[in-house]
Amino acid sequence: MTLYSNYFNSSGGDYLENDATIIRYMLEVEAALAKAQAKNNIIPEKDAETIASCCSIEYYDITKIKSELPLGGNAAIPLVKQLIRNVKNVQFDASKYVHLGATSQDIVDTAHTLLIRDFMNDLEAKLITLCDLLDQLARSHRQTFMIGRTLLQQARPITFGVKTARWMAPILSVVQRYQESKHRILSITLGGAVGCGNEFLTPEVQADLATDLQLTIPNHQSNFLEASTILASLIGHLGKMAKDISLLMQTEVGEVYEGALKGKGGSSTMPHKRNPVTCASLIANSVRAPHLLATLYSAIPQEHERSAGLWHAEWEVIIDLMRLCNGSITNAIDLITNLEVDVERMKQNLELTNGLIYAEKVTLVLAEKIGRQSAHENIEKACRQSINNQVHLKEIISNDYPDIENVEALFLPENSIGDSLRITDQISENWKEIKNQILNKKQ
Amino acid sequence: MTLYSNYFNSSGGDYLENDATIIRYMLEVEAALAKAQAKNNIIPEKDAETIASCCSIEYYDITKIKSELPLGGNAAIPLVKQLIRNVKNVQFDASKYVHLGATSQDIVDTAHTLLIRDFMNDLEAKLITLCDLLDQLARSHRQTFMIGRTLLQQARPITFGVKTARWMAPILSVVQRYQESKHRILSITLGGAVGCGNEFLTPEVQADLATDLQLTIPNHQSNFLEASTILASLIGHLGKMAKDISLLMQTEVGEVYEGALKGKGGSSTMPHKRNPVTCASLIANSVRAPHLLATLYSAIPQEHERSAGLWHAEWEVIIDLMRLCNGSITNAIDLITNLEVDVERMKQNLELTNGLIYAEKVTLVLAEKIGRQSAHENIEKACRQSINNQVHLKEIISNDYPDIENVEALFLPENSIGDSLRITDQISENWKEIKNQILNKKQ
Amino acid sequence: MTLYSNYFNSSGGDYLENDATIIRYMLEVEAALAKAQAKNNIIPEKDAETIASCCSIEYYDITKIKSELPLGGNAAIPLVKQLIRNVKNVQFDASKYVHLGATSQDIVDTAHTLLIRDFMNDLEAKLITLCDLLDQLARSHRQTFMIGRTLLQQARPITFGVKTARWMAPILSVVQRYQESKHRILSITLGGAVGCGNEFLTPEVQADLATDLQLTIPNHQSNFLEASTILASLIGHLGKMAKDISLLMQTEVGEVYEGALKGKGGSSTMPHKRNPVTCASLIANSVRAPHLLATLYSAIPQEHERSAGLWHAEWEVIIDLMRLCNGSITNAIDLITNLEVDVERMKQNLELTNGLIYAEKVTLVLAEKIGRQSAHENIEKACRQSINNQVHLKEIISNDYPDIENVEALFLPENSIGDSLRITDQISENWKEIKNQILNKKQ
Amino acid sequence: MTLYSNYFNSSGGDYLENDATIIRYMLEVEAALAKAQAKNNIIPEKDAETIASCCSIEYYDITKIKSELPLGGNAAIPLVKQLIRNVKNVQFDASKYVHLGATSQDIVDTAHTLLIRDFMNDLEAKLITLCDLLDQLARSHRQTFMIGRTLLQQARPITFGVKTARWMAPILSVVQRYQESKHRILSITLGGAVGCGNEFLTPEVQADLATDLQLTIPNHQSNFLEASTILASLIGHLGKMAKDISLLMQTEVGEVYEGALKGKGGSSTMPHKRNPVTCASLIANSVRAPHLLATLYSAIPQEHERSAGLWHAEWEVIIDLMRLCNGSITNAIDLITNLEVDVERMKQNLELTNGLIYAEKVTLVLAEKIGRQSAHENIEKACRQSINNQVHLKEIISNDYPDIENVEALFLPENSIGDSLRITDQISENWKEIKNQILNKKQ
Repeated sequence: MTLYSNYFNSSGGDYLENDATIIRYMLEVEAALAKAQAKNNIIPEKDAETIASCCSIEYYDITKIKSELPLGGNAAIPLVKQLIRNVKNVQFDASKYVHLGATSQDIVDTAHTLLIRDFMNDLEAKLITLCDLLDQLARSHRQTFMIGRTLLQQARPITFGVKTARWMAPILSVVQRYQESKHRILSITLGGAVGCGNEFLTPEVQADLATDLQLTIPNHQSNFLEASTILASLIGHLGKMAKDISLLMQTEVGEVYEGALKGKGGSSTMPHKRNPVTCASLIANSVRAPHLLATLYSAIPQEHERSAGLWHAEWEVIIDLMRLCNGSITNAIDLITNLEVDVERMKQNLELTNGLIYAEKVTLVLAEKIGRQSAHENIEKACRQSINNQVHLKEIISNDYPDIENVEALFLPENSIGDSLRITDQISENWKEIKNQILNKKQ
Repeated sequence: MTLYSNYFNSSGGDYLENDATIIRYMLEVEAALAKAQAKNNIIPEKDAETIASCCSIEYYDITKIKSELPLGGNAAIPLVKQLIRNVKNVQFDASKYVHLGATSQDIVDTAHTLLIRDFMNDLEAKLITLCDLLDQLARSHRQTFMIGRTLLQQARPITFGVKTARWMAPILSVVQRYQESKHRILSITLGGAVGCGNEFLTPEVQADLATDLQLTIPNHQSNFLEASTILASLIGHLGKMAKDISLLMQTEVGEVYEGALKGKGGSSTMPHKRNPVTCASLIANSVRAPHLLATLYSAIPQEHERSAGLWHAEWEVIIDLMRLCNGSITNAIDLITNLEVDVERMKQNLELTNGLIYAEKVTLVLAEKIGRQSAHENIEKACRQSINNQVHLKEIISNDYPDIENVEALFLPENSIGDSLRITDQISENWKEIKNQILNKKQ
Repeated sequence: MTLYSNYFNSSGGDYLENDATIIRYMLEVEAALAKAQAKNNIIPEKDAETIASCCSIEYYDITKIKSELPLGGNAAIPLVKQLIRNVKNVQFDASKYVHLGATSQDIVDTAHTLLIRDFMNDLEAKLITLCDLLDQLARSHRQTFMIGRTLLQQARPITFGVKTARWMAPILSVVQRYQESKHRILSITLGGAVGCGNEFLTPEVQADLATDLQLTIPNHQSNFLEASTILASLIGHLGKMAKDISLLMQTEVGEVYEGALKGKGGSSTMPHKRNPVTCASLIANSVRAPHLLATLYSAIPQEHERSAGLWHAEWEVIIDLMRLCNGSITNAIDLITNLEVDVERMKQNLELTNGLIYAEKVTLVLAEKIGRQSAHENIEKACRQSINNQVHLKEIISNDYPDIENVEALFLPENSIGDSLRITDQISENWKEIKNQILNKKQ
Repeated sequence: MTLYSNYFNSSGGDYLENDATIIRYMLEVEAALAKAQAKNNIIPEKDAETIASCCSIEYYDITKIKSELPLGGNAAIPLVKQLIRNVKNVQFDASKYVHLGATSQDIVDTAHTLLIRDFMNDLEAKLITLCDLLDQLARSHRQTFMIGRTLLQQARPITFGVKTARWMAPILSVVQRYQESKHRILSITLGGAVGCGNEFLTPEVQADLATDLQLTIPNHQSNFLEASTILASLIGHLGKMAKDISLLMQTEVGEVYEGALKGKGGSSTMPHKRNPVTCASLIANSVRAPHLLATLYSAIPQEHERSAGLWHAEWEVIIDLMRLCNGSITNAIDLITNLEVDVERMKQNLELTNGLIYAEKVTLVLAEKIGRQSAHENIEKACRQSINNQVHLKEIISNDYPDIENVEALFLPENSIGDSLRITDQISENWKEIKNQILNKKQ
């Protein structure tokens, strides 16, 4: 836990920063291993039970594990020492079956995978909440017109609905990718000393262990790479949403605001300020995540059957990625739940250029009358006039081209939003489908 | 092209470093767009044909495009300028249908996707070659015994077959992931000014463009993130293989060598040296790739409907990743094709510890005779004796425990390789299956 | 050279992407080495002259060097081969003194250092140009008032002068750091096979080589780390300036613009757009540079006396950093040279909050009359009134507190800019001093 | 604190992971600010004393600060709230002078700088310890011969002394750079709302604050960039040392070992293993540090006068870098203190190539007799003979060239170590000098 844990992670993610968490999972693995070996007659049933009965977190001195950890270089060695001692106290002979045939990495990696499994379950639930919120927001602002911006310049009208829907779209892509890769991500590691198995870690033991832990035995384990790719993508896409909101919150734009909780984001000495403090945490996380991801990619070229250092580099980093991902998703839910949308200001901002954002549309209409080349030149002139004299382009066009019918309509945002409505609806449909898939699987 | 292009990329990857390549793809997109619009009666058929006829790379002044590029900030703007001029020369009126409704990003991103499509096709072929080579190597060394090493220390025997197979396993995982994500990766970008479509870019136009370019219209485009993830993973896993080989090539280990081409890796003044120069290029690429990947993740939080700078940050980086990936796969094929395996040295190295690598096996057998605790203590003593007196553990055991039958067998690597053979065979099976899937799809 | 070289690098930086450049420097090193050895009577004077006479780039087949490079794994091996051949053609016996006692890394690293030396010289000149421009801009806008913004919200008034000066300040810091570290950065590498020298590379030879190449023999060479740190810092700070300008160019802000070159940044179909295309290149470079820097840090832990792969990872990356740095500085000069400042709009934007940005100032004055607590509560009420009724805070205060003298002055930006003027002047002074230091050294 | 804190950080670095630490420093800044303002007659002396008396960590509810932190988006806001309350309880009126004119970033950044100051002091002491150890090791092994290795291949003899000295050299470079940049790194941040000062933060107040906190007011603050560069460099160089040691510990090399503490690095079931567990932590840290550094460089382009997100991204990362740096230096001291050097094995390994490592030396001698070309060809033949027949090159030379005097000497490592001794001595001298500089400054 750092001073900033509640900000970059969230109070609901405390377990990620709790030493006991990973130890608890390691004990779960040791217990399940003994049971799987008993089931396959490799060790006696009752000794497996004894071992399992000792795998309860309250029997362990975590401070001692932490202080001994630098001697063996991983958490399994001091933990197994305590486990053996505890088993001996119950039934001396059972102790020889503890951790049988396994290596530290089997326990550590599988424990991390269990943590990822539970984290991902929780994340999935939060993603459903967030996407439901975004979907609702998109649908309720399906026809709220606003300016679309490229390279930070006003470009053409869009809807706030499609903007929201497009915040959601890449998140759906990540959700979909997770569904595809789950079977590789949530898999056991059980290979013994050099990862090639032994008589105590038969294929049957592996299968039973995987079943017991609700994990798989994949053909090609992806370790933590795929999981971290998904987390980093998600943090990035949420960062994009926060970046947009922080820009929309600018004093000069003022279209959207983080909800004004009492004491939040404000400043008593600067009453006009509405700091995007939640956005800032999402943005900060999106700055950090790519580098955490890259750390795990830097750790791919591990020497021989187990690395001296590269394996070790993964442990804190994968947890850091989960911390930040938890913070980003939790804060995103909060952000969208309380988002304030200033529809009126959006309308006003559409008028900031005195109609120039509709110049292309006008050109197309005029071209039908006087040819493309002339239309282009004339409208360019009209635009310069509009800028120089600060007159609305609509007025100039009405005056200069009285035979263009329905000039008014050319300057309405609803006629310039392209496929915004259809795209909004389609992303909404996609979400419905994906959500059903997830919920059906869960049953 | 850099001084080192042949080393970190390969001569077969020249097209990745050729300016004309991406321009050629951009022209392919412009032509296909016009045709798709003609097919949907948005522009006249014959004008589309005129446009398409002008989309041939030889009509373009690439130097001019490059020098004008900083004015518009992307390659599409100066290219479209030349395209319009070329079309005007053929059929003045057709020029007004050039690039109709599209925005620069549509052309640039789709062109990059076409490049990725072709690169990936080529990569897939090379991956088949590499995996076939690795599979063959694994099968021919199925029973070649060697020491397995963890934390750079000799641990337990394995086979060179299983080592090779496990170099291949994560590559198979990447291949599999690519098959899953292809439909998201190889997809068009066509959204017009603010990405929300318009009357010239109808869903039908999009569908026809995608079909023509052999790309998809995905629900959730993943842009270049998923592609780059796959490339970086592959570069990393090939780096791991090279790292292992470079370690096995050490003078003190000498188990495996890069093939000795004339003039390769050697030194006339140091005749004993066999520098792992091909490995070095693979390792170098694996050091760089994570950072290139992270660059693309850093570019996720793009502002609004198109970013000022983050979009631009992607262009050279995605190509750099392809360069390095091409270099790594090409060099890996060369490396494995010419790999020299010193089976005899592997055997010798298994004996370097005077049998201590078998100590645990001996303990297990002795335990059945004198109990686990005593066995453990006695063998520990025997090991110390072996180390201090530089006597083989086998001799000590034979002398001290004459009633252990078949001591010889305890010290044979074939009895200590765990599941190595089965794992080798299984990965081989997996490869067969995946290869069939790929080849069937291609038909 | 990539399609984007003119954009992310610049036409003046072509030499960085030219294969001949580094070869030319390598030849310079070989010539200087022979001369230094002759000077110390290690090789005959006339043979050194012969060698030096052959070190002219036009005698070398660079394509051949590039194609042979993968065999030896670095550029020195095939180059030395050609050098020996060339020398033999002139004077057979002199060939045995070519590259005497040196190793490839000596030549490659020293050549890169020569490139860095020339690049840095050029960069220094460009930094002087840029800082002069920024200084001039700061001084001419010393009293141009604008709003200061924190977390993208209007906060308090500053001047455009101080904003400009503070863009310059971190650049000055980088300039200063370069002056300090130059002696470590611009140093020869000459250690022979294992870096520990030999009878042909005596301390005297090293000293003479260093003198000839205008480099140093440092106590502790920093290789490319310090240089790359400086480049990446600079790219980052220039990116910050571009980020600010791109934000100030927003349609809704409109305070500052990239100069409007014909055909630059504009869009014929969107006449109101002024895309920050130069800023985009600076921002893109600042997204990429941290990852390039990190690559070089990832390459620190090189094995033993020369690494297999980590050394190799440096070559293209250090040049990429120079490319981007050259692009950023060149584009920054262009950007500042042509910057358009809309002083009027700055003034208008200061009024956007109806005076709320001055609320704290008013509170302080009122506190002297009615106590701090009451003042605070009353002004808070006034602010709410201002927001709700869209009335300027000045009006409310004038009405409600007739005995506050000179209310007008409380709402003038000049009275709320803190130390902006002094800070501007001080940074200007600093620049003057640093510039003098640099220019004096050059003489 | 994570499960691995004792391993990647160290028990002596607990304070870096303690929430109270940074809060304590923030209070130190608030107290010093009040005192500096009192000294300059901006606030009453006795109120400053009251404020300072409340700035004691035990009066603060850190849990509350942490839980309120997400509302304001930084730690200063909830802390100042508690500080005001505490001051009010003592002397109501003094509360209006709390945090006067300051902004959150002033307090947060200066507090981090104080943490860096203390960390750096501690680090400096540890660097002295480490360099003394390395220096001693280098001097005691000044003439211990071993093989130098390039690209993981045996190359030429060096000494273990020079190897050790060269582990130290880049560390000295870092120490030197820190001395140069200290004045920029250890500097206050005090600019108020938009960083441009105000009437409460006069230059005099700044000067007094800096003096009180033993910090500077730099012309060009480098924030955390320079500090992090130094930390990451150090972690990298220590990682290189650990990488070398882990390679030297390989079963097949066996020249150097981590000290064998009871229970350390060993394996009861694999009695021959001596895992480089301390090295692994140093290597792991060196894999992570470049990415943490890059995060801080990614955070350079902060928007306007304070960023929404990029400032926030720095907080946990700079502390993570200190954690890892502390772990690396502490573990490095432990590693070198207990290092075991097997001089005998070094000697044996020098003989592994049957004298081929001396082939070049022999060629040079023979060339004087029979010319360079013939010498080269003959020795090449002799080398092939040596390899094929597994005969020592010395024997072949003795037989074939009886008139070469003192063949024995050609095959002695002491005659092939180049300048190893001089380099060792020089680095030792450098260290002495730098150490004196540091110690003199401290007095």
